[in-house]
Amino acid sequence: MADTLLQPHSSADTRLKERAAAVVPGGMWGHQRAAAVPRGFPQFFAGGDGARVRDVDGRDYIDFMCSWGPIILGHRHPAVDEAVRRQFQAGDCLDGPTEHLVVLAEMLVETIPHAAWAMFQKNGADAMTTCVTIARAATGKRKVLAAAGAYHGAVPWCSPSLVGVTAEDRAHVVNYTYNDVESLTAAAAEAGDDLAAIVVSAFRHDISRTQELPSREFAAAARALCDRAGAALVLDDVRAGFRLDLGGSWERVGVRPDLAGYSKAIANGQPLAAVTGGEAFREAAAKVFVTGSFWYGGAPMAAAVATLTELHRVNAPERLEAAGRRFAAGLTEQASRHGFDLEISGPPAMPMVLFKDDAERLLGEAFCQEALARGVYLNHRHNMFLSLAHTDAVIDEALEATDAAFAALAVKTRD
Amino acid sequence: MADTLLQPHSSADTRLKERAAAVVPGGMWGHQRAAAVPRGFPQFFAGGDGARVRDVDGRDYIDFMCSWGPIILGHRHPAVDEAVRRQFQAGDCLDGPTEHLVVLAEMLVETIPHAAWAMFQKNGADAMTTCVTIARAATGKRKVLAAAGAYHGAVPWCSPSLVGVTAEDRAHVVNYTYNDVESLTAAAAEAGDDLAAIVVSAFRHDISRTQELPSREFAAAARALCDRAGAALVLDDVRAGFRLDLGGSWERVGVRPDLAGYSKAIANGQPLAAVTGGEAFREAAAKVFVTGSFWYGGAPMAAAVATLTELHRVNAPERLEAAGRRFAAGLTEQASRHGFDLEISGPPAMPMVLFKDDAERLLGEAFCQEALARGVYLNHRHNMFLSLAHTDAVIDEALEATDAAFAALAVKTRD
Repeated sequence: MADTLLQPHSSADTRLKERAAAVVPGGMWGHQRAAAVPRGFPQFFAGGDGARVRDVDGRDYIDFMCSWGPIILGHRHPAVDEAVRRQFQAGDCLDGPTEHLVVLAEMLVETIPHAAWAMFQKNGADAMTTCVTIARAATGKRKVLAAAGAYHGAVPWCSPSLVGVTAEDRAHVVNYTYNDVESLTAAAAEAGDDLAAIVVSAFRHDISRTQELPSREFAAAARALCDRAGAALVLDDVRAGFRLDLGGSWERVGVRPDLAGYSKAIANGQPLAAVTGGEAFREAAAKVFVTGSFWYGGAPMAAAVATLTELHRVNAPERLEAAGRRFAAGLTEQASRHGFDLEISGPPAMPMVLFKDDAERLLGEAFCQEALARGVYLNHRHNMFLSLAHTDAVIDEALEATDAAFAALAVKTRD
Repeated sequence: MADTLLQPHSSADTRLKERAAAVVPGGMWGHQRAAAVPRGFPQFFAGGDGARVRDVDGRDYIDFMCSWGPIILGHRHPAVDEAVRRQFQAGDCLDGPTEHLVVLAEMLVETIPHAAWAMFQKNGADAMTTCVTIARAATGKRKVLAAAGAYHGAVPWCSPSLVGVTAEDRAHVVNYTYNDVESLTAAAAEAGDDLAAIVVSAFRHDISRTQELPSREFAAAARALCDRAGAALVLDDVRAGFRLDLGGSWERVGVRPDLAGYSKAIANGQPLAAVTGGEAFREAAAKVFVTGSFWYGGAPMAAAVATLTELHRVNAPERLEAAGRRFAAGLTEQASRHGFDLEISGPPAMPMVLFKDDAERLLGEAFCQEALARGVYLNHRHNMFLSLAHTDAVIDEALEATDAAFAALAVKTRD
């Protein structure tokens, strides 16, 4: 690998990393923890524009992470920014909500077939915890089925880490295997007459693993088990929401949930999450007590209204899928030409790009480093995200860089 | 009560309330639930400026809720807004944090004596849950002591409501009575050698109840119990942080926590929360996995840097206390002159204003309605908040209105 290509990051970013190491545990935490940032990758960013992000050393990259999902229209989309600016100039955080809350709830109810109502939060985990709380309130039952390895947030009941988490935090969570009807049925049997909810991800997007779309059989089984038990089918659309289908990601398999959680792309980067639910869960939703100091702020909801309007206008899922297909086709062809065995899985708009026989993802990491040095920001363990700013021209420009990155990797791995 | 004074809210606000009732469970949820909004009060707001908020019908009020705490410099403070605007124009939600994260962490470490490091979140509940998770990770123990009736967030382990919450969510929470050393000692004894943390509010600010500042004896006992057990003393400064003492609210009683949670006022309304901790808890803080999609956004951190800079510059706690004293003195004199028995409790910058012998707070509600009709926005069950925009002139203007409100209430209650 061309180590010298990674040197330009030694200035502002390095200094910030050193300062962060002193005043931030581990230098940074969570999914952005310093230890998980590949060598040579920038940790600190200055801005973004369309499909590009700029690091603190002024280097621009074509961005295939889209801020880990939130950016769906491209960075600094004019219509969204204008909506935010307008509310911000009047006042964002007030003594109560703004009219945007009502407009946004109406929009979601109109857009999402299962939704009779909506509530808003800040984190994806807020949305998922709210769904589970509503399901328990509605059913009077406790058990929640969740797929092993699925990510629903970093709070005790579902965190991927058990550090600082007690056994009781998970006491009523029963695991099943995604897309495995038999294991789901067995988990439901284990819950018995105490089943409150089955939580399903939009698709299987576990870290560093081949992605799987839900099978129709699995989706139908989840729906049927909930119907039989009077439990809530809860769709975690936090990561995938609005990229695959504006009506909810399981529209594609013909199954509608009772409750769904959204966040990431809902407001093109403004902090917001949402829960939608059906009529049968409205009363329980009104009874639970969930809230936060910033949950009623106007600007993020104004941003969401503008974002959804634009997503509708351009038929976003179709365009995102086409962009993802163009990117994947290019990568696949390049990999094969340079002698690599690539596996690109999941929906084209949210591809996981893995090298085969690369269990520790070292080859993947080296490839991402080569791509970064050529102006393309990728991830080797997490699914990536396309945005509407990823035009054919942008993707072709990125593919030029990845072609060179594969070539460099081929030289390197032949050493 | 002059019912006609409340009629102007029947237009835009009423229409939004009706629309919200259709698409939002209960018309609105959480601490802003529609059922808790007094009759005649606006539910929807359009903006704010300094010490004033404007409802969707264009009526301005002198605002003594400050958006339930976040607004500490006044609505739309120019220095904060400029910092937000600058980062927002570059890009807010990026692939990693901005330099503001480092600057803000450094500032907190410099400002808060117990702090060796900082981490950031979105909700106060995120901060408190993170504190508890770190305490458990550091100690390998499970029990968390929390005061009965204290508010630490609306998530299962600490929500004031048990609807949709399981017994296991609270399995390791042991209650004590705030400011009661004996009950605290008994709770610690109950936890035995499984004590991970004692969680204390900055002061006792339970809903609809006389507020109590912490006694030095209570604070010292909490510190000593933690030291003896090797447990973490966790200060919940989410509501009070930066209003009472920039170094943390328990500086006033001479006790420093191991971990502290902040949110509300930290960024003058921008969505942000923080955890600070001592050196002994750094390693555990680096080990736990806590994160969120929007936790690294640049604009709220830029806002926090600007907010803290301004709070330091003007010696905010002293000014806020003086403003609160002026307001309380005026209210007390007026109440007495109009024949009412008022009890104003807690720190002057965060007063709880209750009428004596008013268990259901009906008199308090009627008074708030009279004040609202005269352009002053108060709360009869929750502590209120002063900001730096509450100048003497603003407070005197508010007191003119409350004088008339007391007079109207006197007429009404004499009927």
